[in-house]
Amino acid sequence: MPGHHTDTHFEYLRDDEAFQELLRHLAEIADLQSTAALLGWDEQVMMPGGGRESRADQKATLQRLIHERRTSERMGELLELLADRELPYDSDEASLIRVTRREYQRLKKVPQALVVELSRAASDGYHCWLKARQDNDFRVFQPALERIYQLHRELADALGYEEHPLDALVDAIEPGLRTADLERIFDALRTELVPMVRTISQHLDRVDDSILRQHFERNKQLLIGRKAVEKIGFDFHRGRQDISVHPFTIALSPADVRYTTRVNEHDFAQCFFACLHEGGHALYAQGIPERFRRTPLRAGASAGFHESQSRLWENLVGRSLQFWEYFLPEMKEVFPTQMKDASAEMIYRAVNKVQPSLIRVEADEVTYNLHIMLRFELEKAVYDAQLTIADLADAWRDKMRSYLGVEPSSDLEGILQDIHWSGRFGACFQSYTLGNIIAAQLYCKVLEQHPDLPEYFRKGDFSPLLSWIREKIHAHGAKFTPEELLLKATGERLTTRPYLDYLKTKYSQVYNVEL
Amino acid sequence: MPGHHTDTHFEYLRDDEAFQELLRHLAEIADLQSTAALLGWDEQVMMPGGGRESRADQKATLQRLIHERRTSERMGELLELLADRELPYDSDEASLIRVTRREYQRLKKVPQALVVELSRAASDGYHCWLKARQDNDFRVFQPALERIYQLHRELADALGYEEHPLDALVDAIEPGLRTADLERIFDALRTELVPMVRTISQHLDRVDDSILRQHFERNKQLLIGRKAVEKIGFDFHRGRQDISVHPFTIALSPADVRYTTRVNEHDFAQCFFACLHEGGHALYAQGIPERFRRTPLRAGASAGFHESQSRLWENLVGRSLQFWEYFLPEMKEVFPTQMKDASAEMIYRAVNKVQPSLIRVEADEVTYNLHIMLRFELEKAVYDAQLTIADLADAWRDKMRSYLGVEPSSDLEGILQDIHWSGRFGACFQSYTLGNIIAAQLYCKVLEQHPDLPEYFRKGDFSPLLSWIREKIHAHGAKFTPEELLLKATGERLTTRPYLDYLKTKYSQVYNVEL
Repeated sequence: MPGHHTDTHFEYLRDDEAFQELLRHLAEIADLQSTAALLGWDEQVMMPGGGRESRADQKATLQRLIHERRTSERMGELLELLADRELPYDSDEASLIRVTRREYQRLKKVPQALVVELSRAASDGYHCWLKARQDNDFRVFQPALERIYQLHRELADALGYEEHPLDALVDAIEPGLRTADLERIFDALRTELVPMVRTISQHLDRVDDSILRQHFERNKQLLIGRKAVEKIGFDFHRGRQDISVHPFTIALSPADVRYTTRVNEHDFAQCFFACLHEGGHALYAQGIPERFRRTPLRAGASAGFHESQSRLWENLVGRSLQFWEYFLPEMKEVFPTQMKDASAEMIYRAVNKVQPSLIRVEADEVTYNLHIMLRFELEKAVYDAQLTIADLADAWRDKMRSYLGVEPSSDLEGILQDIHWSGRFGACFQSYTLGNIIAAQLYCKVLEQHPDLPEYFRKGDFSPLLSWIREKIHAHGAKFTPEELLLKATGERLTTRPYLDYLKTKYSQVYNVEL
Repeated sequence: MPGHHTDTHFEYLRDDEAFQELLRHLAEIADLQSTAALLGWDEQVMMPGGGRESRADQKATLQRLIHERRTSERMGELLELLADRELPYDSDEASLIRVTRREYQRLKKVPQALVVELSRAASDGYHCWLKARQDNDFRVFQPALERIYQLHRELADALGYEEHPLDALVDAIEPGLRTADLERIFDALRTELVPMVRTISQHLDRVDDSILRQHFERNKQLLIGRKAVEKIGFDFHRGRQDISVHPFTIALSPADVRYTTRVNEHDFAQCFFACLHEGGHALYAQGIPERFRRTPLRAGASAGFHESQSRLWENLVGRSLQFWEYFLPEMKEVFPTQMKDASAEMIYRAVNKVQPSLIRVEADEVTYNLHIMLRFELEKAVYDAQLTIADLADAWRDKMRSYLGVEPSSDLEGILQDIHWSGRFGACFQSYTLGNIIAAQLYCKVLEQHPDLPEYFRKGDFSPLLSWIREKIHAHGAKFTPEELLLKATGERLTTRPYLDYLKTKYSQVYNVEL
């Protein structure tokens, strides 16, 4: 009998034996998953190079045990037994059973051997990617990526799909969404963003960000990043900040949430906005109710919803004028020389400089989604057999030129910049764009109810925003599909309107142009 | 079918299906154990305070899965099937089967629920111990310790014993050794050490260690500790140095070995000798052959043998005159002011100052074993129902006064100083004394073959010693019992003679007295 004691508040089915057994199974799975998460965090943040081989073994073994348990016969029987329980749809119990069943039915289709192979390919891929970055040569990574693509293709086939193989991979992280939906969303964005970038590009020199390009000492950057994340509400008793090659966030529990950042001593924005971005993810993770801890409800609603939280704090808050009106004195304290002549307006304009550029994570809000589109289209072309992995780097260059008018001079500035493909190929990036869109919808809604929110920012008080988000989003964990949750929180379905309006309003003001 | 591929060199039984299946089972167990080790390392070194509850869950779940696998029916069947294979006793294959069978037969007697309870009690105990240290109050820790003792008492009863309940716990970490053996060893030491301490105590002022009691900056201490450990042969590409409340070493694989230290800015010896001590453990772990990686042979021969390695590098090397003849220039570079007037002889004498004192890990070589005896006798008295946990702090004080003539003024200087009882009560400390004895036996033997070893130390070359130890000890992993291994390496059984001779020779010279 797995599990020990389970501190939950699932009152409806307190005396239901099948449900209690399900909880024990899920607790065991959650323990293994959070342990696997620690293996991953440690690998990227702490592990000495020599640990690589045994780490791949450890991860593969954990993934196998997790998959075994998530698809066990007993799990199927318990779900069967629980099928007839009459419960309110919104209740924790109904949601838990619903989410568990959805995952069970999806994973049941995946052979265990494939799960192990995916884990091993990702371990290998990560280290090949690191090596390729060192050598600045995509060809070092190419064989690993081909393997990763092949395995994800197999995964898509195993999961099944009606229209497009990528649907199977998209659905796993954005329940209910299809490739065709994404294409419609990207079309809508493309229509407005491409002309917007073109217009602004004629006036790039209207914004000067040289103030951010001075020398900022590493430890002080880490300190002020930490300070900002603490200020927006992150509890460091229940989490950590560290450094990794590619920033990420991981939750071992709502009370042990770890995010990472990285530092460029000649570009203040990189570390700072990585902190706010990951800090947004981390706030979501800390906001999950404790009673969901050892259940699948402890996750967010979807990858896109998770990105909505990171982009909300990074952009809608962190790149607002009011934020800098509050935060500039903190900056001046840590960087008195660099900030000697700075005004909040000056920093606000600098952090919103539009610049068609090469690196996604450093892209401004206007060009950002073009980076995502490019990646989405390349993945789709590979799945549609219109492009091979071998030709991916060239195709990347072509698309960069056509969308952004810039071209990477090396793989490091191009195809090797993101960690994502080191472990997965297919449906890797759309969440960022979904996140931008959802963040704008949520922010639009919260402003309706709290029009004075920016005034609070100006005073360094982010709690009204956090409270609203905690109540409307975090409190529900993974109970609802993204569509359901968005409807609940805003009364609307996914729509690009608030996001495009936000961009137009902000950037026509910053650049003093009509958009 | 557990496991994936297993890179081993077990040639004898390459085509033996049962053996290959056993290897796969053992690989899975090893992966889970090294993952559990990471959970422990992270808890002591990295985890934010909030992670405590979920970490206890994760550890308990892992321990349960490990125990399930180590005692599974299939494991029993495989061992049965393999019972008739004719193999040389010394072969990897025979040793692997022998060690696996020994562990299987021992663990089979332990109920799974007890394993889980022990894990949870240790998680709880660790945090209560930390809290008690903060409050400097044993009573904060007492209830947790009572629970830990009760569970270990149950464990001893489950394992069974002929003479004394502690035998069951001793045998688990020192295969073949009994409580009565330990009492004989301690008697032999007591007879000679108590008069030795008494004699030296009349001349304590003959050695001045004030040079070590200056201010040594934290980061520089960490740096020079790291340098020393690297110099004796530790490979930092395959390991790390970190900081924790109580120094320890953990091996996630021979290529991922992590040790910790701690710093007192007003006592140079603490951090430095913790580094050398843990560095000794860490060298043992890095010296285990790669082919043993995912098998039970990857461990050391016993806890005592592990301590022999730490004490060897800490004391026989690190507190030798020749070591300091080599290392003083390194010291002068990092601490030019503090070391301005230092000579190797001065440091050598300082690091060998005898001082009856309160803290075991800071104790000199002469008084050290009295600290161990005290703990062993207290544990035994509790198991013999002559002492309760509630009276332990008082009994500690009494024994300190009688053995060492000093008395702790607080629990922090007394019963709360060691981490060991936070997770285990019974047979926790004897390994240190066994380690001292074995280290002296090994060193005596290697000197027979390489009498010029100290001359190599003087040149900063520790490789002749390391090579000998690697070949005679590390290369065998856990293949042999401590008794077998000691016989193989030295041609002798365990004997206190070399150790007592070493102490007499060294300290009669340092203190210029007859011992």
